Amino acid sequence: MSELVNVRLSDNEESVIILDQRKLPNKIEYVECRTLEDMYDAIFELKVRGAPAIGIFTAYAMYVLGCRLTYHPVEIAEKLKAARPTAVNLQWAVDRMLAANCSREECRAIHAEDVAMCTAIAEQGLSLIEYGSTVLTHCNAGPLATSRYGTGLGALILGAERGFTLKAYVCETRPLLQGARITAFELMNAGIDTTLVCDNMASSLMQSGKIDAVFVGCDRVAANGDIANKIGTSGLAVLAKHYGVPFYVFAPSSTIDSSCKCGADIVIEERDGGEITDLYFAESIAPSGVKCFNPSFDVTPAALITAIVTEKGTFVPNGAGI
Amino acid sequence: MSELVNVRLSDNEESVIILDQRKLPNKIEYVECRTLEDMYDAIFELKVRGAPAIGIFTAYAMYVLGCRLTYHPVEIAEKLKAARPTAVNLQWAVDRMLAANCSREECRAIHAEDVAMCTAIAEQGLSLIEYGSTVLTHCNAGPLATSRYGTGLGALILGAERGFTLKAYVCETRPLLQGARITAFELMNAGIDTTLVCDNMASSLMQSGKIDAVFVGCDRVAANGDIANKIGTSGLAVLAKHYGVPFYVFAPSSTIDSSCKCGADIVIEERDGGEITDLYFAESIAPSGVKCFNPSFDVTPAALITAIVTEKGTFVPNGAGI
Repeated sequence: MSELVNVRLSDNEESVIILDQRKLPNKIEYVECRTLEDMYDAIFELKVRGAPAIGIFTAYAMYVLGCRLTYHPVEIAEKLKAARPTAVNLQWAVDRMLAANCSREECRAIHAEDVAMCTAIAEQGLSLIEYGSTVLTHCNAGPLATSRYGTGLGALILGAERGFTLKAYVCETRPLLQGARITAFELMNAGIDTTLVCDNMASSLMQSGKIDAVFVGCDRVAANGDIANKIGTSGLAVLAKHYGVPFYVFAPSSTIDSSCKCGADIVIEERDGGEITDLYFAESIAPSGVKCFNPSFDVTPAALITAIVTEKGTFVPNGAGI
Repeated sequence: MSELVNVRLSDNEESVIILDQRKLPNKIEYVECRTLEDMYDAIFELKVRGAPAIGIFTAYAMYVLGCRLTYHPVEIAEKLKAARPTAVNLQWAVDRMLAANCSREECRAIHAEDVAMCTAIAEQGLSLIEYGSTVLTHCNAGPLATSRYGTGLGALILGAERGFTLKAYVCETRPLLQGARITAFELMNAGIDTTLVCDNMASSLMQSGKIDAVFVGCDRVAANGDIANKIGTSGLAVLAKHYGVPFYVFAPSSTIDSSCKCGADIVIEERDGGEITDLYFAESIAPSGVKCFNPSFDVTPAALITAIVTEKGTFVPNGAGI
């Protein structure tokens, strides 16, 4: 059992060292990013993923590169922002570092604030479950996407540190398999009794009384408490309601989007069908030319959510506003 | 669009020709089985699969081999029965062919009875949906596992023949991917507008109103109307109930097991975790040594089933007996 450090400054502070998440779970490989090109590639090629983790990485990158005379800070800023234009945390971290003259204090603060946020969420999550509980989780909301404890997995990892003897079932999370590849790895690394299942096994697990609570992360919370998260989340929420299992959503308060009235206003990204039929497989699993429908996210209505846990408090959404 | 023939006598009636289902969907390969060893291998190695299809194949095998002086009928019977000792239809077909002296009429009758059974189920299924409907299906209950129309897919394929312009969404059905590999292939072959999804996308589909009915096959019907079918079926039934989508189960009346009082009496087979983590993948998708839970089937309670369709009629199970 060891703490997973996904992003850190090297000892001489001349580079940023990251765990290459694309290689998990088969290889644990650290990559040293030294040049602006290295930093850009780390973000662009998804070696570092998860909104908070990208923010932390970007802050360290701005500090390391900002110390050198080779680059102008604005050049660094423009190049890094272009690596993933839709990543809000990336833009935010670049602007914050620019405003602070790429100072060492600022990048340390950005990292420390994320650790504090995750710790606060983990503490509240832990108060929702009992010693020896079994939690079902979906996709990945762990330390590799954030820092230290993660959000959705925070209570489990903090609980393991405190000897709560928790158990976890992890949905593999098709098509990109983040549950199998990353969450299972993080939970096993934290010494938690972890069992992998296919997504379609959740009903059987809940029916047989094996699950005490469902914990998921969240990409966006609408003003009425509807949430958007990885595809499959809404199905788990319906099952949890049917079987009487509490369903908790863990989200940094920054994911609450008060400009978004309700779930119906959230546009769901549809991705390429090849992710379903070919990615990760030795050969195609479906007939050539089959049509696919591959939405990345789904919307879980507030009425199916027991509570939304943020670093600022735990809310029970009632569809009327949170 | 062409009729898929999974099992047939060769023209000179000296062999049985089967479509090798292990090679689908990437290769459409027919195998000629001539010797007792060939017949045994076809069953043992799952080139032919699906209880009714195994019964039909066995009947033809007994006829072809029974015409020769090389083997004693009892020798053939013992060898074939040993190929899959738990396959009830295999044992049944062998005994029926033995009692009929391996006659040509008997194997033709066994095949014709299955076609009639599938046709009757398909006709009833078609009466449950309207022109232009969209059906969600799971796993495989199609012609390759049975004959001609299949059971769960019967209404779709018969409907396509009659120009009903039906649409199908197919759950890929982890871990063995029978939906992606076999059902999608069968439906596309029948000229049906077919879209493949991951199992965890069913909630999103039903939430957005895309699904008019769920059609699934069934392995066993208990006396109270609870059913056992491929893992994931019970989750679809809960979702269908929640979203107000009718949920139909298609089953030959031979799957009704009146000695089994209710779903809780059905023992669920658990299979190897490697099916989840390694099978079909280019490399392992989960950390080495992860625990897996891999139940093959789950139980859907009668209360979640709109109707059970058999060749003898359509029943609305009420949990009190069907």
